[in-house]
Parts: sequence; C-alpha cells; structure tokens
Amino acid sequence: MKTVGIVGASGYTGGELLRILINHPEADVKVATSRENAGEPVFRLHPQLRKLTELKFVEPDLERVAESCEFVFLALPHGVSAPVAKKLLERGVRVIDLSADFRLKNKDDYPKWYGWEHPCPELLQEAVFGLPEFHRDEIRKAKLVANPGCIATASILSLAPAIKTGAVEKDRVVVDAKIGSSGAGIGVSEASHHPEHSNLVRAYKPSMHRHTAEIEQELSLKANSEKVTVALTPHAVDMVRGIMATGHSFLTREVTNQEMWKVCREMYQNEPFVRIVKDHKGLHLLPDPKNVIGSNFCDVGFEIDPHAKRLVTFGAIDNMLKGAAGQAVQNFNLMISVDERTGIRFTGVRPV
Amino acid sequence: MKTVGIVGASGYTGGELLRILINHPEADVKVATSRENAGEPVFRLHPQLRKLTELKFVEPDLERVAESCEFVFLALPHGVSAPVAKKLLERGVRVIDLSADFRLKNKDDYPKWYGWEHPCPELLQEAVFGLPEFHRDEIRKAKLVANPGCIATASILSLAPAIKTGAVEKDRVVVDAKIGSSGAGIGVSEASHHPEHSNLVRAYKPSMHRHTAEIEQELSLKANSEKVTVALTPHAVDMVRGIMATGHSFLTREVTNQEMWKVCREMYQNEPFVRIVKDHKGLHLLPDPKNVIGSNFCDVGFEIDPHAKRLVTFGAIDNMLKGAAGQAVQNFNLMISVDERTGIRFTGVRPV
Amino acid sequence: MKTVGIVGASGYTGGELLRILINHPEADVKVATSRENAGEPVFRLHPQLRKLTELKFVEPDLERVAESCEFVFLALPHGVSAPVAKKLLERGVRVIDLSADFRLKNKDDYPKWYGWEHPCPELLQEAVFGLPEFHRDEIRKAKLVANPGCIATASILSLAPAIKTGAVEKDRVVVDAKIGSSGAGIGVSEASHHPEHSNLVRAYKPSMHRHTAEIEQELSLKANSEKVTVALTPHAVDMVRGIMATGHSFLTREVTNQEMWKVCREMYQNEPFVRIVKDHKGLHLLPDPKNVIGSNFCDVGFEIDPHAKRLVTFGAIDNMLKGAAGQAVQNFNLMISVDERTGIRFTGVRPV
Amino acid sequence: MKTVGIVGASGYTGGELLRILINHPEADVKVATSRENAGEPVFRLHPQLRKLTELKFVEPDLERVAESCEFVFLALPHGVSAPVAKKLLERGVRVIDLSADFRLKNKDDYPKWYGWEHPCPELLQEAVFGLPEFHRDEIRKAKLVANPGCIATASILSLAPAIKTGAVEKDRVVVDAKIGSSGAGIGVSEASHHPEHSNLVRAYKPSMHRHTAEIEQELSLKANSEKVTVALTPHAVDMVRGIMATGHSFLTREVTNQEMWKVCREMYQNEPFVRIVKDHKGLHLLPDPKNVIGSNFCDVGFEIDPHAKRLVTFGAIDNMLKGAAGQAVQNFNLMISVDERTGIRFTGVRPV
Repeated sequence: MKTVGIVGASGYTGGELLRILINHPEADVKVATSRENAGEPVFRLHPQLRKLTELKFVEPDLERVAESCEFVFLALPHGVSAPVAKKLLERGVRVIDLSADFRLKNKDDYPKWYGWEHPCPELLQEAVFGLPEFHRDEIRKAKLVANPGCIATASILSLAPAIKTGAVEKDRVVVDAKIGSSGAGIGVSEASHHPEHSNLVRAYKPSMHRHTAEIEQELSLKANSEKVTVALTPHAVDMVRGIMATGHSFLTREVTNQEMWKVCREMYQNEPFVRIVKDHKGLHLLPDPKNVIGSNFCDVGFEIDPHAKRLVTFGAIDNMLKGAAGQAVQNFNLMISVDERTGIRFTGVRPV
Repeated sequence: MKTVGIVGASGYTGGELLRILINHPEADVKVATSRENAGEPVFRLHPQLRKLTELKFVEPDLERVAESCEFVFLALPHGVSAPVAKKLLERGVRVIDLSADFRLKNKDDYPKWYGWEHPCPELLQEAVFGLPEFHRDEIRKAKLVANPGCIATASILSLAPAIKTGAVEKDRVVVDAKIGSSGAGIGVSEASHHPEHSNLVRAYKPSMHRHTAEIEQELSLKANSEKVTVALTPHAVDMVRGIMATGHSFLTREVTNQEMWKVCREMYQNEPFVRIVKDHKGLHLLPDPKNVIGSNFCDVGFEIDPHAKRLVTFGAIDNMLKGAAGQAVQNFNLMISVDERTGIRFTGVRPV
Repeated sequence: MKTVGIVGASGYTGGELLRILINHPEADVKVATSRENAGEPVFRLHPQLRKLTELKFVEPDLERVAESCEFVFLALPHGVSAPVAKKLLERGVRVIDLSADFRLKNKDDYPKWYGWEHPCPELLQEAVFGLPEFHRDEIRKAKLVANPGCIATASILSLAPAIKTGAVEKDRVVVDAKIGSSGAGIGVSEASHHPEHSNLVRAYKPSMHRHTAEIEQELSLKANSEKVTVALTPHAVDMVRGIMATGHSFLTREVTNQEMWKVCREMYQNEPFVRIVKDHKGLHLLPDPKNVIGSNFCDVGFEIDPHAKRLVTFGAIDNMLKGAAGQAVQNFNLMISVDERTGIRFTGVRPV
Repeated sequence: MKTVGIVGASGYTGGELLRILINHPEADVKVATSRENAGEPVFRLHPQLRKLTELKFVEPDLERVAESCEFVFLALPHGVSAPVAKKLLERGVRVIDLSADFRLKNKDDYPKWYGWEHPCPELLQEAVFGLPEFHRDEIRKAKLVANPGCIATASILSLAPAIKTGAVEKDRVVVDAKIGSSGAGIGVSEASHHPEHSNLVRAYKPSMHRHTAEIEQELSLKANSEKVTVALTPHAVDMVRGIMATGHSFLTREVTNQEMWKVCREMYQNEPFVRIVKDHKGLHLLPDPKNVIGSNFCDVGFEIDPHAKRLVTFGAIDNMLKGAAGQAVQNFNLMISVDERTGIRFTGVRPV
C-alpha cells in the first residue's frame, strides 16, 4: 500500500484519478489539492463520488503533500507543473506528471512548441515518457514519469506499427484527430459553451499543434531514430469523451494485410491495454472511441488503400483514461511493481 | 463460485450482464445464448469485451442451460420470458428475470396492462419483486426474482419517501420521465433512427404506460396498502443512457425539508446504492442521470414548492445498471449471500 | 418599410432577430448595438450572416437609436430592459421588449418573482403581452409589446384549450418543461459547459420559476379570470434548441377526444403559427420540438389518461423563434399592419 | 412558373426538396411520389410541412409524372435512378438526378467504383455535373443534371483552389471527412441506431469510397486535366446534418496566405453560395458545418502548415442542402434562367 496525493484534483482528470485511486487496492489517497475548492468535499465537484469517499480538497501545500505521500500525481496546467514536480522530487516523492512539462527530451522543443524556456531542463533526461507499451522498463524505475498527451497516445500507438514496417514515407504522416470536449478540461470558455460545441466539427490549431512534438519524438524511436514528420490537425466533435486519431501515411512499397497484422501482433498481442481491431463482419470493424469509453484500452486498426497507395491507421481511446488518468495509474502500477492492470481493469461502458 | 447463464445475451442488457459477470468474483459464466448469433464470439456484438473473454454465443437450449448453470439471468422480451423461466425453475435453476413477466402480483393486471393472459399465474406469488431496498429478505430466499423495470425503479425509489410521509395525495401522483435510447434495446426501429432520435423530446405512450402497474403496486405497499394512482408519461430525449423520473405530487398538509430529509435518511442512509442528493451549493444540487452513468446508484432528491403546494421528487439512474443489469446482479448477490456490492462497485464515469 | 433597431444584438436572440430582419421586406435594419463588440461586423459573432450583411455592431447610444429607428427590439437582460424601453418610448419609438420587464400586469409580482421593484410600473398597463393568438388586436395598436417567455409561450398555448374546457382543476396544473441550452443565452457558465451539459437531465429552478407568473396570468384569462395555479419545473436536456412543455392537469369531469379537438380547433385552426398535432399513425403522433426547429410554429397536442383521470398536454416550440425572435417579428408585423407571417414563413429544418 | 415533380419524395432529401419547392415562386409542385406511402399526406412523413401543404404522395407512375411535370427531381437510390431518368428524358422532361448515376463521365468508372455496368452509358456525356460554381453555363442548357454527392461537393469546392495553385502534389490528396447521420438517409439500420450512432467516430468505407471517383474527376479538371489522386476516408460523427471535408495536401513549393486568398477570391468572390472563411479573431476562424446548417452555403478555408509543408483545406456544408436538395434547386434555377438564389436564400439557423 502506497500513500498517494493528487495535486490539482478539482478538474476532470483529477476526478478520474480520484475515482480510480480510492478504489485501488495498493493506493491510499492522502491528499487531493485544489486551491479554489479547499475545504469542500470532493463529491461536490465530482458528484459520481458521493457516498464513496469522505475526502475533502485541501490547499496545495507542497511541504505537507511531500510529508504524507510517497507518490504524487500532478494534474496541473502546462508550465505550472514543472517547478512543482521539481520540489516534490527534491523531497523524495516519485511523481507522475500529467502535463506536457517533461514529455519532450529536447529542451529546445519547449520554446518551439510551447513558447517558453523550460525552467528545469536538467530533469528532461531523467523523466520517462510514460507510455508503458514502449518504455515499460524505464517506467518501473522512474522517479518522474511524463504521462503522454491524449492525442499523442492514440496517435503513437496506432502509427507505430506503420512506422515499424519501414514501408511508409516518414516525412509526411498525417494525423487527423477527432476529440471530445472533456479534453479541454473543466474550465468554461466560449469554445466549450454547449450551444457552440454541439453539432460541430471545428478544427482546432490545425497546424503546429503542440502534441506534434511528442508524437514525432516517439515515432522517430520506432523509425530507428530517423526523423518522422507529423502533420496533425485535431477537430472538436460533439462528444464528451473519446479521441480518434486517423493516420494517413503513404506507402513506399506494397504492404499486405498479413504483414500489417504480423507487425501489430508482435507489438501488441501481449499488451494488456492495446487491442487490434480489424474485424471482417458486424458493425465494429475498426476502432471507434465509443467502444473504449470508460476503459483504459487503446484500440488500433488499419486499412490499406490500394487506390491511393495509402495506409490508413486508427487509434481510439478514452481521453480521460488511456489518454490521462488511466495511463497515469498504469504507470503507477509499474512503478510500484504490481500487476499493470490493478485498479484499472474496468471494462468499457457500452453503449453510452 | 456459482455457475451462471444469460439467456438472451446479445442485447444491451445482455452485454452489461456479461461485462459485470465475467468480472464477478463469485460468478462463473457458463452460457450466453443468442439464437441469431450462435457461434459468434460475444465481443463481436459487445466490442467492449474484446480481449476480455473468449466466450461465444450458443443456441438457447434450455436443457443444456439448466445442466450447466445454477443461476440464470433472462434478458428476453416481455411475454417470451415466462415459459422459459418456468422450465428452468422446474429443473432447479434459480432465475433472475429481467422482463416484466413476473413483476405484477395480480394476474388480472397482465391483460389490463400488457394485453395477454399470464401463462403461469401460479408463479406470480412465488416471484419476488427484485428491488433490494424494499424486498431484501425475500430476495435472499427467492427462486425467482422479477427484476423491476427501469422507469419503475427510478420512480419507486424517488417517490417512496413522499408516499411514506402520508402527506401527499395518493390518487394523483404524476411521474414525468425522461429516458435515453438504450432503454428500447438493440433492435432498430424508425423511432430509434439517429436522425429521428437526436434533438428530440418525444412523449412515448403518454398514458397507460405499462410501468404504471408496477409503480402503483410498490408505492401502495408504502402507503399501508392504500391504492396509489400514478399518472406516468415518459419522454425520449437525446441521450443513450439514463432515466430521470420527475415526480409531482400534491401536499395534503405542510411538509418541511427537515421532515423529508428525515424520511429519506431513514429509508436510504444504509442503502449501498441509493444516495440522497439535495445540495445547497455547486452545480449538482439535485439528481441527474448524468451523475450515475456507469454506476448502480439511484440518486433521489426532492423540492418543496410552497407556491403550488407540491412536492417535486427526482430519481436518476443508469437504466442499464440500476435499471437492469446492475440491479439484477445486486439481486444475485443477495441470493448467494455475498456482499450486495460484489462486482458492481464501479463508480460512475464522469463526465461522459 | 420601417426603420428598425436591435439593442443587445450580440446574443443568440439578437442573431436570430438579425437573420430575420435583414431578410424582412418591410424592415430596414439601421442599428444593431453591442457594447462589447462595437465596431465588429455582425458576422463575426453570428457566422451564419457572413456574406449576407455588411452591418456592424455599434455602441448602445439610445439617442442615436431613437433618431434612426421607428421600431426597436430589446434583447437585453431582465431588469436592464425597462429603463431603456422607457427612454425609447419617450422619444416616440415603438418597442418590442424580449425581456420579462413588461410581461406582468401586477407590479407586486416583480418583487415576488423577480426580486426587485419595478422601476416604471406606470408602463405595465400600457404594455401588451405579445402573444398574438390571444392579444392580437391590442398588439396592433401597442407602443410597447412585452414578448412572452419561451417556456411561457409553449405552456400557455398548449394549456389554454384545457383551461378553456373548464374541465380541469385550476389549482394544480403541472408544467414539466424540457429545454435546450440556447435558452440560457450566449454567456458561458459552468452549467452550460459542454461536458456538463451533455447527456443530462438537470432540473433547473424546480419550484418558483419566474415564468410561472406569466403563465398563471395568461391562463387565468382563459379561466374567466379565475386564478390558475401552475406548478412549473423546467429541465435542461441535451439539445440546443427547442422546448417541450408537458402539462399534467386533472379532470373534474369526463372529457372526450372529440371535445378537446373541438376546443383546440376553435382556438387555433385559423392561427398561422399554431398546429394541432394528434396523429393516429406514423412516428409523429404528438408535438416534438424537433419538428418545429427553424420555424415559428407552436405545435400543440393532448392525450386523455382515463386511468389517472388526467389530461396531458404538449406544447413544442423553437425557443429562439416562437419563443423569442420569431414571435417578436410576428408582433412587429401586427404593429405595422402587414401579413403576420411576413419574413417568418420559413419552414422547419428537418431532420436536424 | 414551372411544373415540377419529385420522384422518391419520402426520404430526407425528398422532404427538403418539398420544403424548398412548395415555397419556390417559380415552381408548382405537381407530384411527389412514394411507392410505400402513396395516399398519405406528405406531412405525415415530413412533419415540418404540416399546415403548409395539402400534397399527398402518389404512386411513381412515370407516364403521369411526365405528363404533368416539365422538371423532375429524382431522389432515388444509386442504380435505380438511371432507367427512370432515361424514360423521363425520352418524354421531354428535364431531369435533376440526385443519385450518382450520371455523375461520372467515364462509363468504366461505374463497374470500378459502383460494381455495376451503366445501363445507359450514352447519357453520360449529355449529363452535366451539377456543380454550378464550375459548370454553370452547361447547367443552364442541360436536359439532365447529375447533382453531386455531398462529400464530393464539400471536397471539390474546398480543394479546387489548392489544386489551382499548381503547388500541391496531385497524387496524394487526403480527404478526411466527418459526416452527420442524415447523409445515410431515412432507412433504418444497425449503423444508424441511436445508441450505436451517438458519441461515435466510426470510419466508414475508409478506402475506395465511391465519392472518390467524382472528386478526382472534377479536381482533375482544375489541374489542367492532369490526374488528381484522392485518398478519401469518411467518418460518421454524432450530428444529424453537416459535412466537414478536411483536405491534407503536400506543397511542392512555398505558398503564402496571400496567394491562397487570391486564388480563393478569384474563384469564389462572386459565387452566391461559397464563402471564404479564414478569420483572425473570434471563435469562428475556419469553416464548421455548424455555421451553415439550414443554408445552401459551402464555407471553404485553408491553413498553411510550415512544419509539415502541408496545405490543410476545409469545406463545410449542410449535406441536405448544398450537398443535396439545395444544390438541386440551385441547378433548377439555372435551368429555368432565374436568379440562382431563388427559393434557397434562407440563412443558416444558428445555433442549432
């Protein structure tokens, strides 16, 4: 049993972390911080937790967090997280950071993609990119895990087999993503106003989206460190949860379904949270975020387009789980050497 | 560990029963029948179960079901279930029937509300109405449990405290229900066609709805067997899961919030799956199906209207869980004498 | 051709007024004010108007508005509208006020229902309640029209025939309303945040809702000025446009479908914007807001419940049109003595 | 005033044609056929038309249709339309065909993309592809107009400027489309069942989609008849109306915003139904189907991605209007030499 804390627990990711961790047999939630809601019971913001916990939000006092917790999950805005992580690490806490602050290895990528200089670049090499499928061993030993972005998780996992074949053009991998509204968090905005966010398909940051950097970083690792260039365009659609990352890449030679199946199977058949979806009958032929909502799965699939000599790939996740809180707990499980699925075995809720 | 079977496992309720039971520590799912899909892996219809079970649908051969299962859940259409239940009971199987076929105690109510004579009226007295909050002890010993209807569950649990006060007019209790599309099942129809079922508020069977009978039966028990008359009108709204039963009843004397709180607390404070929701701050002041989706909770609440001398009550459930599969497993847990929450402890998934 | 202005043109009602009036053959839109957006082209906030008008928002300078406009539509918050209306009236402008500020005849109702003293009670008798079906002649001559509330419009029109029969109990008329998110306007809030406003059924102000007052006022007129008491509970549901007002009233004597049809027909058969919907086949048996979206219609219907001796009534409107901008223009048409349907003949857009 | 008929008037496209044409000042709707619904008033299937027309569906007797109508709109399934069109043409009727049966110029494309031999290939050259922006003069004189597909309309109009620049690779133009459920028509199916079609992102026919052929045909005309290869993947998302066609093409040389603006302007500034949307402030920066719902507009926009040397294009339409019935009437207007906007001037309904 490990003592854990959640810093920034009033948002949606915080709510999901709480939901999972209060039921986790190896976690003892000591602290859930929220500056604005200190003193309130957590169920007032997260009504699904009513009658399930007496926990209250407390002020984010890092000294006290460090005293009471061996592990801390940071659900803070980009840019705010880094100095907090640093302080906690200095006090011997192991940190799972859900922001982007430690995802990129190259410190020059922060000014380029995020617009600011990294405040503690010395930690970037120490931080482990928290995608268990590709960094499992490092995560086990990590003091600081950088939980991947939601679009990035779906993109990387679905495109990795394509890159692995060596048969696609690496300088022009399109990712056309469709995302639910919860990804933008609990903060209200004109863009998230229900009348504006219903029945829409709104491209958001159609070029130079920040997740591009981590997708390229990780896919390049699958390309024997050859540079992969990603052309990412996310679209807000009318759903709350879920991400579909549709990849369009171009073939440099012929590829068969058999070859793709083989690569996918080698990569994922033993993965507890990745499923290959390419069925030949029924309604559910390919990944659809609908089919993973409420679970930690990433469903991946592919289609070969002989007409345009293209490989289409699909990656579907629940952005709050495999795209955030679920993957964070998967990382936590690795860090504490228990079954990776502990506390996150829940099956998708369907239909919803 | 009990052997269990699901007859009619290809629908949405079947899918939810499978999801719960394959993870249930005291259940060993031996059989999932579906005439149309015999031979198919269950994940083909229930894609959330992919990689989680190797189970396949089999033909509904009742002899074999009875041989292999101590407990059988029937997820069959109204009218089809009764003879199947009878056969299984004769072979010593304990049955949890999710249809309406054994919910009504008075055999004359079947011609009146359902339009057919009951084929085995002798079983009606033996059957136990499977609402644990009000029939827990009988359920424990039951051979045949009649799982309540979804609208009925939300209506009965939310109105029972009002009736209990003795302070509302019993001959005119309005229930205005709002229901998601999953309640109508997996079968396609013009009414459930997405372009027709989006952005709608469509009254369905605005008088003489069948659930009226079971709501009246159960609320009358709370009224010292005085007849309660229910005026039920359900409306289809644009959501997949969830039911809100808004009750409007009229006060015969003044009632205070304190009195209502007291009655609610006495009735529900020890109930594992009922929560009283009447908050004084924040966004979540009253029950909302949104806050129970993916859980087995029924949230109940109330508001006193001094202007119209009215008591407004609210009951919110996930129709697939507390309104169907979740409650069925709650009943199963009682029947096998384990903690009532076994296998259905999952917290709501929010926001979704 | 009349010169018209819209004060408060940046909200959703303002957008709909603009859409209608720039295409209206008898209106010449001179001014659209918005303090926050002065100088911006109107299409920046109302993108549906791009390429259709060069109009820009201007500061709300009432002197200049009064100089350039014979008619002014006020789309301002409750409480803000009254003094603006007064100033414009003093300058000879005819005013159509879409707020609640002049809807109630009794000045004591403002402290009771709105919580403030009316600043110009002397105008309350002069103002005409802008429901053309019941106040057509007064509207024609009015200087100040108080456009009804959206829930009120659907409630009054659907319940008036029931009240007219004299066969329902007047002291307990339940209105259970279901409303789309656009009714709350363009201003963002926690309640309207898309993740919070999807897949919900959230009771809002379940007793003492402000529209109660105007519904009672108008229905009492149909009851030979006997007091009608309304028990109103609105619910936010997951749609952008539309209101369904379901009325539940109790019968004091038997009523037949024929009698109800007769009363409805007498009241509405010559009304250009009210339709009686009570079909006997097909999917569209009763009013549904879905079927009026994009039109100025109010669909009304009813069902007699012999079991509970209840009359269920249904009123469905597009809250932005018959519930706001469309009805305002219908009133304008009456005031300028043109065909009531001018500029608002558009048919509903279906399916949407 | 022209006499017109609609063959296949019971579907959604039929409903929209009826809505437009019964209000069209130059059209006199003589016939609306529906084999299944002959004898029924059209409002029973299209409830938005209640109180607006007395028209009834009649049997599809082509002789009688030809006798009474100068113009006929065919809203029939692909493959069914061709022989009907032929018969009507032989009787001197001018035909606007909303199916795919006459869209492709090369008869060999039918076996390739549709799987059947064309029954009257001699008509393919005579037929005019009904995209007014690119074939206006031919449409005016046409006897047979092939109304473009919905995805095709959004794709062609948004990609044409990109192709026109000559600066994009023509052999790899990705179109990632997002479509609402109404596009699949009024017929029920498992795929369109509301619980299955909510909160989804489901790739449909992710390669070799039929609209590919007409998009390539028309874009190649903009490329000086050089072959353009399109890689199309449509996705069903949770909305009823609307299509977003996101194009991803790769630059062969640097392109500036100014250059793109210039090409767009030259192509579209005088087009009544195409708007260039590329704003620099506010929420509505790029095309979104939400902003054209209920109108005949196609909004087009673009973004230059310097990182991936990519041009992203956006085309948004209401699939029932510019993607079907609206464009059909636009073509009709050209054929009868009236203002192209007659009867289809309606502005988008927003928000919805």
